[in-house]
Parts: sequence; structure tokens; C-alpha cells
Amino acid sequence: MSVARFEVLHRDASGFARRGRLQLPHGVVETPVFMPVGTQATVKSLTPADLTDDIKASIILGNTYHLMLRPGADLVEKMGGLHRFMAWEKPILTDSGGFQVWSLGDLRKIEEHGVRFRSHIDGAEIFLGPKQSMHIQRQLGSDIVMAFDECTPYPASVDEANASMQMSMRWAAECRMHLPVNNHQALFGIVQGGMYPDLRLESLDAVAAIDFEGIAIGGLSVGEPKEEMLAMLDALAPHLPADKPHYVMGVGTPDDLIEGVDRGIDMFDCVMPTRNARNGTLFTDNGKLNIKNLCHAEDEQPIMEGCSCYTCTHFSRAYLRHLYMAKEILSSRLNTLHNLHYYCDLMQRARTALEDGNWPEFRDQFLQRYRDDA
Amino acid sequence: MSVARFEVLHRDASGFARRGRLQLPHGVVETPVFMPVGTQATVKSLTPADLTDDIKASIILGNTYHLMLRPGADLVEKMGGLHRFMAWEKPILTDSGGFQVWSLGDLRKIEEHGVRFRSHIDGAEIFLGPKQSMHIQRQLGSDIVMAFDECTPYPASVDEANASMQMSMRWAAECRMHLPVNNHQALFGIVQGGMYPDLRLESLDAVAAIDFEGIAIGGLSVGEPKEEMLAMLDALAPHLPADKPHYVMGVGTPDDLIEGVDRGIDMFDCVMPTRNARNGTLFTDNGKLNIKNLCHAEDEQPIMEGCSCYTCTHFSRAYLRHLYMAKEILSSRLNTLHNLHYYCDLMQRARTALEDGNWPEFRDQFLQRYRDDA
Repeated sequence: MSVARFEVLHRDASGFARRGRLQLPHGVVETPVFMPVGTQATVKSLTPADLTDDIKASIILGNTYHLMLRPGADLVEKMGGLHRFMAWEKPILTDSGGFQVWSLGDLRKIEEHGVRFRSHIDGAEIFLGPKQSMHIQRQLGSDIVMAFDECTPYPASVDEANASMQMSMRWAAECRMHLPVNNHQALFGIVQGGMYPDLRLESLDAVAAIDFEGIAIGGLSVGEPKEEMLAMLDALAPHLPADKPHYVMGVGTPDDLIEGVDRGIDMFDCVMPTRNARNGTLFTDNGKLNIKNLCHAEDEQPIMEGCSCYTCTHFSRAYLRHLYMAKEILSSRLNTLHNLHYYCDLMQRARTALEDGNWPEFRDQFLQRYRDDA
Repeated sequence: MSVARFEVLHRDASGFARRGRLQLPHGVVETPVFMPVGTQATVKSLTPADLTDDIKASIILGNTYHLMLRPGADLVEKMGGLHRFMAWEKPILTDSGGFQVWSLGDLRKIEEHGVRFRSHIDGAEIFLGPKQSMHIQRQLGSDIVMAFDECTPYPASVDEANASMQMSMRWAAECRMHLPVNNHQALFGIVQGGMYPDLRLESLDAVAAIDFEGIAIGGLSVGEPKEEMLAMLDALAPHLPADKPHYVMGVGTPDDLIEGVDRGIDMFDCVMPTRNARNGTLFTDNGKLNIKNLCHAEDEQPIMEGCSCYTCTHFSRAYLRHLYMAKEILSSRLNTLHNLHYYCDLMQRARTALEDGNWPEFRDQFLQRYRDDA
């Protein structure tokens, strides 16, 4: 029996949106869910207590590439695994490292069994493929392991996209071989195929044919226009296996999340709320605000009226602007707390709307109000 | 009646150490006490909740010089004062700005009524003297206002030290004039006089003759050998007014605190626990440890066995070293949490020893074990 039990609790009658529950070794994840990114065994600036108590995160993401280089998977394993090392007791999803090594550009060379690259830290030559990625993710001990794949560049010709996708599919099968269904870790396959719907559907068939515990969609949010990304999710939505969780990788803005849920996506991750926080960009239902702006200098309002996060219930925009201008560490922390709270709470609001049967109203009201270019 | 009510609850029969209680507008401070430094309206990397819940800080320090430059005292006043601005509900002590402008060296010029200097942020010319400092500290709304003084350089000739001290005493009287005894803020006078016991005692007489709510000792820990600092505290101890709190400014290491308590000091502040934390230097009963060191790479121990801080109860030295090496923001935060917890808890242990009547044993055991050069 699979380690990841997924059930759909509610469906929106008018479309693909659904409210689900995913049971994993370290706990239950209510979906749709946003997963904060904890690249180097820490969600930047936050403690596990912040993530559980204030943000109500139920699952976080760890980066295999970063962890294998520093502190090293052997060390993490020796310290009892990633959960114990970083004192996070709830589920963890680890990516495969594929996207990060692909992002190295000229510093890496793709071969049939994986990617040869140089560490950005000390220049050491390293080989990472399906076999190695599965081994490392076992050492890390995550609840959800991601298959090792190649992210198809954007733009790419149909031939390039096809060759890349075919290799990812061979690698997907190899990953399942190296990490058979077991009681400790779930394995998610990843759909590729660039911006070509036919390739995407072929890839989905290949992934669905393997006994993965979840289906991910990779290679989106890599520079393509938002309409193209949504069109791809539209093309896939009717074909995603209904009994498995659907995860779109590295997406996105708050409105992307709502659009994704509407297309049957259950899981999201993105560095945007954390990275933007450190740059002073904060999310609200009306869109983004830049805390650096002079208009906030004497503003006694919280970032977002009605927000229940620690930052909004204690501090004014004036104070947050001061911390940012004074380059205080607390600036990153309070901003990150708010942005992640906003993202996770948005998914809670989506879950409630789905439970209450008013998803279409919630979605439309949200998208009408939210302006990503604000 | 004075706004600051101080009572001595226990005395060590063999010396000057005492256990006291200082009541201030924003709460009660149990002494001896260590005050974390919150330079720019934040104790770097920490929230008020960290300071109250984990560190058990009962009073923090704010820096007039930094706050007057950024965000500006007018803004802080407009935002409801420093307490409300930074969401800290317990007592605050603000320094006068004297020490910081003195530290500017060539960028400042000392005149009879204060100091003319240029802002380190935008180069603007600013004048700060007793009158201005009292006005700004009123705007900040701190519980304890410090008199504006000149820190005597080290080394200084007896004539230099005398002239400097005499000016500080004239300024002390002027400060009291500009901030008469009232129900909102207490004012502490500062003893100067360099490393000359006679000048120090003359200064103490002058300060004691003014109706201050507390007596501070300034100009120590400015480069002199530790023995010289302790000798000066020895010289002053028998003469400090017993009914007022005694505060030694900018001191020091954990053993300095214990030596200070032994000489009748009730209050301490220092940037050492916070600044060192950010540099990876952590305090324990055995002395300092440097988390960067390779010996901690696979060390599953907490920083200090038995420490009840959030950092020590959740994370290994191996994890803390990883965060430091990876330049993660959480490194500064977890290290700061531990160091401040250590300092504040050390004062709690001192208070307990004084209550239990075993101060000499506690002091001797601590000083025997603690090695500041570790």
C-alpha cells in the first residue's frame, strides 16, 4: 500500500477545483496547499515554530541541489535526516535537483544518465542523475521525493521539447526503479513537454502509466507569458488522474495559485513570497505593495487590514519601512512572515470556499480585486 | 513622587551584591538585570515576543543617536512613541546619544552646550546637547532617560579627565532642569572621571546631589584592562547611594556582569551578546564557543547542555554551524536568541542566589568555571 493516501473531499461542480487531503508519514496536508520553500534546511529567516504556529504551513519544500552541496546529504543523514536536522516535524517535499543543475547553464553538461556539473560553492565536479537523486533524497528522508527530470528550456522547438521530454520519461521510470513503492517515502512523477500540448499529454500518459504517488507539472513559470501557462494547465486538467494529488512546480503569484486551483491543481511552491519579502515587496488582496515607498513613511496601517499574521497584528507600515531602510534583519523576518501567512491563508480561504460550495464566487471576487502589477 | 520606585529585597551579607526591584511606568524590573540593546527600534533579528517569551527580558535599551537620525524622533513621537512604534510593552531605557556622538571622533566638535556633528547617514550637521537630548528622549517616551554626558577618552591625563567630568556634571544639572521629576520618565545621572578614583568620587558626589532616579557609571569598558575597570567599581561601591539603582553602562562579558553584581551593580547593557551572536560567537558557562569551527560540523549537542532557550532545545551545533556557513538569516536569529537568553538567565541565576543567601558560592563557582578567553 502506498505511503501517500490521497482523498478528494469536495469538488467544484462547475470545473476542476477540488478540496483534498493527503496523508504522509509526517502528517496530514489539507489541499489545495502552498508549500514554503526551505532551500538550505531553513525557510529563510523563520523558525519551525513560526511556520507551524503563525503561518500554519503543513508541508515545506527542501532543495536537494543545495543540501547535497552544503552541508551534504551524508551529514544530514548522520544527523537523523532533514526533519530532525532542521527540527521540522511535519511533511517535507524535496525536489530532485534537476531544475537547479539545469539552471547552471554553461556550468553543466547533460548526459544520458544525468547531469555533470560544477558546484557553485567550491567548483567540485559532481554527477547527478535519477539514481543519485533518489539516493540523496532517501538520505534526506523527505516525505515526498520528486523524480529527476530535465526542465525544457523556453522557448524550445518541438523537436528539442520532445527529446527533452522523452529523456525525462526514461529518467522517471529509472527513478521509480531506484525508489520502489515503500512505506517511508512517496515519489511524484513530473510531466514535461514544453509549450506543446500534444507532448504534454504524451508525457502525462507516460507518467500516469508509472505507479507514482502524485503527478507534478514541471517546466512552467520559466519565462512564458501567463496566458500560455494557463492554457497548458487547461489542456492538462481534464486528463490528470483524479485519484492522485496534482502539483504544479515553482508557481506562482497569488492569482496564479487561484487559477491553478481552478484547473485542478492541489499543490504549489514558489520562492516568490519569501524572496519578495526580503526585497520589501508584500502581498495583499489588492496586489503587491513596496514597503520602501515614501508613502508608507508615516503610515500607521498594517500591511493588510484584517490580516491575522504576527506582523500585521503588531506593526505599522511605517515601522516596517523603517526596518527596511535601516537594513535590519527583522525586516526580512517580519515581511517573510506576512507573505507566507498570506499565501498559506489564501489556500485556506480556497479550501473553505470549496467546502462551502462557493468556489466560483470566491475565485471571481479574488481575481477581480487582485492586481499583480499593482 | 518619583516615577521610579526602587527597593532592595535582599543583600549579600559579605559584600555589596543585592537583589532589587525597580518599578517603572511600563512594568517591573527585577534586578540585577541585563538589558538587551535595541539600537534602531529593534533588538537585531528578534521580535518583542522572542524577548518576552523566550529570553524573559524585562527592559531593553534604545539608542537616541540612531533613532534621532533614522527614522527621526518626530516620526517616532507621531507613531505614538518608541514602545508603540516597535510594539514593545515593557520598560525601555534610552541612552542620551552622548556616547555615540563622542565615538564619531573627527566628525564631531564638543562645545560648551553640547556636540556639533555630522550624521553618518546623510552628512547633515546636527547639534546635540543636554537640552536637545532631553527633548528627543521625551519624544521617544522611554521609561528611563539617561543624562547627556561626555565619555572621557582612555587614556586621558588627570586634567583632561577632570575637565571632561566637570562638563558632564554641568550637563547633568542642565538635564535635570530640562526633565524635572515627573510621572512619566525617570532620569539617571552618569558618573564620569576616567580612571582616577578621586575624580570618580567627586563626580559621584555631584550626581548624588542632584535628585536623579538612578546612578549610572559611564566611561568604563572603553579599552582599559579589566582589572582597572573592576578597581574603579571597587572604589565606587561603598559610596553608591543604597536607595537608588546602580547601572554600569556598556558592560560586558558574563564574568564582568558577575563581578559587577558583586560590587553593587543592579543594571547592565552591552552589545556583546547580540553582536557576537551574528559573528557566530556563543556564550556558555564554560566560556565562548565559535560555531564556525570545524569541530562542530557533526556535533549533535546543543550550544550548552541544560540551556532552556528555543535554540538549545531544538537545534544541534551541527545545524547552527551549517546556518552560519550558508550565511542564513536564521543563523543570526538563533544565535542571538541563545546569547541573550544566556545573559538574562545568568542574571536570573544571580537573583536566585541572592534570594537564597548563597551569592558568594554562586559567584565563585561561576568565575572558576567561566573562561572568557575560551
